[in-house]
Amino acid sequence: MNINAPRGTADILPKDAVKWQIAESKIKEICARYHFEEIRTPLFEHTELFQRGVGDSTDIVQKEMYTFQDRGGRSLTLRPEGTASVARAFVQNKLFGEIVQPVKLYYFMQMFRYERPQQGRMRQLNQFGVEVLGSDNPAVDAEVIDLAMTIYKELGLKSLKLVINSLGDQESRQNYREALIGHFTPVKEELCHDCQTRLQQNPMRILDCKTDRDHPAMKTAPSILDYLNEESYKYFEQVKAYLDLLGIPYEVDPNLVRGLDYYNHTAFEIMSNAEGFGAITTLAGGGRYNGLIEDIGGPSTPGIGFGMGIERLLMALEAEKVTLEEKGSLDCYLISVGEMAERQAMKILHDLRDKGIRADRDYQGRKMKAQFKTADRLHVKYVLVLGEEEIEKQVISVKNMETQEQTEVSLTDLADSLYNQLYGGKNHE
Amino acid sequence: MNINAPRGTADILPKDAVKWQIAESKIKEICARYHFEEIRTPLFEHTELFQRGVGDSTDIVQKEMYTFQDRGGRSLTLRPEGTASVARAFVQNKLFGEIVQPVKLYYFMQMFRYERPQQGRMRQLNQFGVEVLGSDNPAVDAEVIDLAMTIYKELGLKSLKLVINSLGDQESRQNYREALIGHFTPVKEELCHDCQTRLQQNPMRILDCKTDRDHPAMKTAPSILDYLNEESYKYFEQVKAYLDLLGIPYEVDPNLVRGLDYYNHTAFEIMSNAEGFGAITTLAGGGRYNGLIEDIGGPSTPGIGFGMGIERLLMALEAEKVTLEEKGSLDCYLISVGEMAERQAMKILHDLRDKGIRADRDYQGRKMKAQFKTADRLHVKYVLVLGEEEIEKQVISVKNMETQEQTEVSLTDLADSLYNQLYGGKNHE
Repeated sequence: MNINAPRGTADILPKDAVKWQIAESKIKEICARYHFEEIRTPLFEHTELFQRGVGDSTDIVQKEMYTFQDRGGRSLTLRPEGTASVARAFVQNKLFGEIVQPVKLYYFMQMFRYERPQQGRMRQLNQFGVEVLGSDNPAVDAEVIDLAMTIYKELGLKSLKLVINSLGDQESRQNYREALIGHFTPVKEELCHDCQTRLQQNPMRILDCKTDRDHPAMKTAPSILDYLNEESYKYFEQVKAYLDLLGIPYEVDPNLVRGLDYYNHTAFEIMSNAEGFGAITTLAGGGRYNGLIEDIGGPSTPGIGFGMGIERLLMALEAEKVTLEEKGSLDCYLISVGEMAERQAMKILHDLRDKGIRADRDYQGRKMKAQFKTADRLHVKYVLVLGEEEIEKQVISVKNMETQEQTEVSLTDLADSLYNQLYGGKNHE
Repeated sequence: MNINAPRGTADILPKDAVKWQIAESKIKEICARYHFEEIRTPLFEHTELFQRGVGDSTDIVQKEMYTFQDRGGRSLTLRPEGTASVARAFVQNKLFGEIVQPVKLYYFMQMFRYERPQQGRMRQLNQFGVEVLGSDNPAVDAEVIDLAMTIYKELGLKSLKLVINSLGDQESRQNYREALIGHFTPVKEELCHDCQTRLQQNPMRILDCKTDRDHPAMKTAPSILDYLNEESYKYFEQVKAYLDLLGIPYEVDPNLVRGLDYYNHTAFEIMSNAEGFGAITTLAGGGRYNGLIEDIGGPSTPGIGFGMGIERLLMALEAEKVTLEEKGSLDCYLISVGEMAERQAMKILHDLRDKGIRADRDYQGRKMKAQFKTADRLHVKYVLVLGEEEIEKQVISVKNMETQEQTEVSLTDLADSLYNQLYGGKNHE
């Protein structure tokens, strides 16, 4: 039988799960400071949501979705990205009616994309992301970018590059679209099959094409920044001014178009410059999408957000040699010798844990020496030894593994005494 | 367009997500005390794993799985329960070779079962669970039950009932199976269609049938406890003795057979007795499965675990009127008046957050009075007011919302001063 996890997926084992936990709890704490609140949406949605919300002509919808029929004949799709799901939840739950606006949401989601698995690109991937719905204030764009940069910095990344662009409003995009069609039509036959289709459907996406990246017409293509109307131009200037004010450095890249249909105005990506990080350097990407909520049937509502890959975050931390491990998560290890002691051990363990102490024991009936070895391996602070003699005296031997000091403590005082030594009377939560 | 979440699924909105976060972080903290470590497995597995690991004849596998083909033609299934996935990960990642045994794992997982949605039974449901692999010490059975009971108790539940049973080892089960076939065969025609099939495939499952629950033959059915061989009997006695030692009350119910194929020896369920909790009272269920790892292709390894529904946990807390909410998660709200102040607000906000303070502002350009209302609604501790005059003097007005006291603080001192007032110089993480 095939006992492996499906291709493109991976288990996160305890030694790595610790890193995930540390990263996630730091991100949550930063979100609280920026006053973002958590939302959770189902793993799958009606397929139509992504066709409408992500865009029928995108690679994601055309090639990469996990779509299936449930037993009731509905077409469902495992979410390939987060924004459409959050937008759907915003509309369905009428969050546009909340008194405090904008609604500032964050999420941790698994996403599913049927791509060729490679380093840093799995079929099941994990993203953290935020969406701010209900404000078209350029300060919000800056806040969202500030949040993403703060997360990377506080986790310890140093080699970061922020790239921004404006895709303008409807009118600017329309003018730019015509300019692109005019520019690429003469060389249409030289472009890849996908780009020939894109030329009519969504010519901006040609600028993102990996196949045609070196075609000479790419270099001479018109820039979106020359087609922004006054309002769009002014909006972009304000966003940049806020980033300057916050001391966040950035580069403007007019070719940054993002792969999804719903973006307008501000688009941004954060890359890692770390040596040895590999070919795929984008850590996070996002932008503004003022038309999306209306597209999926809600009231006209501006929005902006980003998605950040957790796998890539951890890879970037590794590339920069930042460690998130926590050494020695166990406070004490109880060694019992003899049948009576083994039985009593369960009660002692229960009382220690009840007090708030992280404690464990051997269940394999191994020799004392082997049990001491395990205690060493677990980097515990105290080893407790319980034998026949100790039980008779109603005490337990407590060894401080750092100082090697050994004392006898009465069983009734043990939990309190250890707790004070470990946490100095304070709660460690 | 259909903008609703698929039938049987639900969004968790910020006001509820807070409860989930509090419950999850408490559970994680208790797991650390009991020295369980987290594992995460993919959302879907090869369908064969559940056919083998859960059992071909179970309701779950026959009627309730979300099974589909991916674009490469593989048959995949969204996990309907946690144990088979963790067992697969244990085998694939060779965790049986880890030096410290048993391996004590916990997980938070979304599960998927295509059932008729009803109160407390969704198609996408959330479970916390643990699996201990590599020990057949009855103390481990007690530890696992102790962990589950501790979680409920520390979260505040009082009306709990623990029910245990032993399904015995292979030999005991075989003898019991024959006794059950002998007992039910004379009334076979009176049983439901499913039970007629179960009679040969797995007669123990008849005892679990909702349709035939009132058939007279149910009451007179033989009890598994009369068919335990000496070893199984002794094992069960030891588990009960440990529970007594830990002061955990329980009832023995010989009809508790659990719906899955892989259980042997100890089986248990924890129910809520709370008034108004509803018809489905089971909060958690689990048991020992010493044959499972071998069944799916690993080395013979004993195991025990349980799964606990998070939705039902929250329902039980509500039924017992235990609240998990945290009031006022925002420290301060910044009100800015005038264009200059609005611009400056972003910098001040950034610096406050950078210091560790949870801060937000208005982005909608509303009047001061409306902004004060929002601050009230958010239960903030401090409101900061910045106008033209304050900017000229390089100060900000700080209002303590509890005492209504108002002071002027210089902009350069603001972050330090507020942080000291809020957290007394200590870090609040």
